[in-house]
Amino acid sequence: MESLANQMTTGETMTAASGSATTSLQTIDLSALLEPVSTDVALVEEWLNTNLIDDTPFVGELLCQIFQAGGKRLRPAIVLLASRATSNRPPQEFSRLHIILAVLTELIHTASLVHDDVIDSASLRRGKQTVNRRWNDRLAVLLGDLLFAQASICLARIMNPVIVGIYGQVLGDLCAGEIRQMRQQFSTQVDWDAYIHKSFCKTASLFAAGSHSGAILNACSDDLVASLKDYGLNLGICFQIVDDLLDVTGSSEKMGKEAGSDLQSGILTAPALFVLERKDSAAQKLEKLIKDRAVTEPDGAQEALELIRQNGGVEQAIELAAKYGRQAKEGLCRLPSTTYRHSLEGLVDYMLTRTN
Amino acid sequence: MESLANQMTTGETMTAASGSATTSLQTIDLSALLEPVSTDVALVEEWLNTNLIDDTPFVGELLCQIFQAGGKRLRPAIVLLASRATSNRPPQEFSRLHIILAVLTELIHTASLVHDDVIDSASLRRGKQTVNRRWNDRLAVLLGDLLFAQASICLARIMNPVIVGIYGQVLGDLCAGEIRQMRQQFSTQVDWDAYIHKSFCKTASLFAAGSHSGAILNACSDDLVASLKDYGLNLGICFQIVDDLLDVTGSSEKMGKEAGSDLQSGILTAPALFVLERKDSAAQKLEKLIKDRAVTEPDGAQEALELIRQNGGVEQAIELAAKYGRQAKEGLCRLPSTTYRHSLEGLVDYMLTRTN
Repeated sequence: MESLANQMTTGETMTAASGSATTSLQTIDLSALLEPVSTDVALVEEWLNTNLIDDTPFVGELLCQIFQAGGKRLRPAIVLLASRATSNRPPQEFSRLHIILAVLTELIHTASLVHDDVIDSASLRRGKQTVNRRWNDRLAVLLGDLLFAQASICLARIMNPVIVGIYGQVLGDLCAGEIRQMRQQFSTQVDWDAYIHKSFCKTASLFAAGSHSGAILNACSDDLVASLKDYGLNLGICFQIVDDLLDVTGSSEKMGKEAGSDLQSGILTAPALFVLERKDSAAQKLEKLIKDRAVTEPDGAQEALELIRQNGGVEQAIELAAKYGRQAKEGLCRLPSTTYRHSLEGLVDYMLTRTN
Repeated sequence: MESLANQMTTGETMTAASGSATTSLQTIDLSALLEPVSTDVALVEEWLNTNLIDDTPFVGELLCQIFQAGGKRLRPAIVLLASRATSNRPPQEFSRLHIILAVLTELIHTASLVHDDVIDSASLRRGKQTVNRRWNDRLAVLLGDLLFAQASICLARIMNPVIVGIYGQVLGDLCAGEIRQMRQQFSTQVDWDAYIHKSFCKTASLFAAGSHSGAILNACSDDLVASLKDYGLNLGICFQIVDDLLDVTGSSEKMGKEAGSDLQSGILTAPALFVLERKDSAAQKLEKLIKDRAVTEPDGAQEALELIRQNGGVEQAIELAAKYGRQAKEGLCRLPSTTYRHSLEGLVDYMLTRTN
C-alpha cells in the first residue's frame, strides 16, 4: 500500500506543474493567505460566535459549540477576498454587507453539514461528535433549521434581490446534491457527468455564490462577475475531488472524520470512478465489492481502498483536481493584481495540497 | 365526560356572541369562503403539485404525495384574500407575485410540519403516516430542506427585500417556537406570556406574514399594512388555541392525527393552563400527572383530559380563542367592504368552529 506521503508527493508535482510556487505541503499556510482580510475574518468569527439571535441560552451555547469546533472558514474567506479584490473603496471603508455575505455563506454551509450528518448518520465531524450522535436527530434537525433561518435573516439584510435569488438556488442545489448522492449509492456505473453535477450541487454551487456575490454588491461588470463565478465553480469541484481523495488517502485523525466513510456508504468518489472505468480485473473486483455491499464492512472497505490506491485511482483524481484548479485560476484573469487576487490564487494551491 | 357535541355547542354560542352570523357548525363552509379567490387557489394548487423543480422523479412524487394528502390551505387563502382585498386592479389583472407569495407561505408551513414531525417523533399527519414514520428521519430532513429551499426560490422571485426580511424572520420564529415548546415540556408553571409568545412563534408569525405581505406588494399605506398584520397575528393565536382545544376535545379520526398527543408529549395547552391556574385540587391532580410523566401513558393522559374537560378548561379556552378572533376582525376595519373582506371575517368564524 502506497503511503500517504508518497501519494502526496505526486500531489506536489502536480501542484508545481499547475503553475504555483508551491514546493512542499508545508509552504501553504491558510492563515497567511487570509492575512489581507484578517480584520474581516475576525468580524465574521465574532458574528458567528455572538450575534446569532436566540433567546434560549441552551441553544445559543450549542451553536457556539458548533462554530468553535472549528472549520476552516474557506467559504467566508472566498467571499471576503473576492469582495475586496473587486472593490474600489479604500480598505477601511469596506462595506458591512460583505461581512454579512461571508457570515451567511458559512451559516448555510454549517446548516447543511448538521443536516447531512443526520441524513448520513455520521458520528464524527471536525474531530468532534456530531450533533445527532452527541444528542439526537431531533435536535440536529432543529439546529440546522435555526442556522438556515439565521442565514435567511442575513440574506434579507443585504437587501439585494439578485443575491437572494443566488442563495435561494444554492439551497435547492444542496438538497438536489444530497438526493443525487443518495440515489447513486452503491451504483457502479461510471457517469462522470453525474459525478460533476452532484459535486456542483453539493459543493461548488455555494463556492460560486460566495465568489461572485461580492462583485455583484460592488456593481462590477457582468464579465467580471461571470469569471469570478467560474472561479468558485471550478474551485468547488476541485475541493470535492480533493475531499474524495482524502477519503481514500487521508487519516481519520487529520480529517476529523472517519477515513473511507464515503466508500463504506457506497458513495462513488473520483478515485473509485477512475478504477471502475478501466474495465479490467481490478475494476471488476471493485465493482463486486461495491455491488455486494462488502464495502460496508471494514475488511471489504480496506480491500476496495487498496484496489483504488494500487490501480492509479489516486493519481488520476489528483490530475483531475489539478485541471479544475487551473480552470479556477483562469477565472481570476480579469482581476487587477492585488494581494487579494494573489490569495485567491493561493487558495487553489491550498485546496490541492490540503490534508484535511 | 362531556361529549364533543356538547362542548362545541358552547363554541357555537361563543361564535354567535363574537358577532358572526354563524348558528351551527355546518354553516361555515371553507370552500364557500374561498370562492372569491377560487381561480387563484387553483393556481396555487397547480404550482404545489407540478411546479416544484426537481429532477428526481422519486422526490417529485414524494412532494406530490405530501401536498395531495390534503391540508386546508388556510395560509395561502389568507394571502390571496388579503392581497385581493387591498388591490386596486381588476380581478383578471391580479399579479402573479401574489400567487407566488401564497405558494411560498404554504411551502414554509409544510416544510415546518415535515421537520416538526421528526422533532416530535409524530406518526400521523392529515390522516396519513408521516414521512419520518413511513420512510425515516433522514428522508424527512431532506424533504423538509427541499421545501424550505423551494420557498427561498419563490421568495427570490418576488424581488422585494422587505418581504424577504419578513419571511426570514418567520423562519427564525418557527425554530424559536419549537425550541420554546421543547424547553417548556412537562413544566406545569402557568405563564401565559410564554404561552402566547410560543404560539406567536410557532403559528401566528407565518399567519401575519401572509396577511400583510400582499398589502406591501400592493403598496398600501403603513396603517393598512399594520392592521392586516394584526389580523394575521390574532388569527394565528386564535388558530393555535383552537388547535389546543381539539387536542382535548377532538377525535383522531376527524383531525387526522392522534388526539391528546400534545398532552402526552408534555406540551401545556391553553385548556390545561386554565385548569392549572385554578390552584385547587383539580389543578394539583393535573400538575402531578404532568410532573410524574403519567400523561405519557394512555391511562394518565385520559385522566388528565377528563380533569381538563370537567374543570372549565375547554370553556375558558373557547372564550380566549373568541377574544383573539374578535381582535382579528378588528384588524380588518380599514378594508373596504368587499367579498374578500367578508371572507377574511368568515375565516375567523371558521377557525373558531373547525373540528379538524
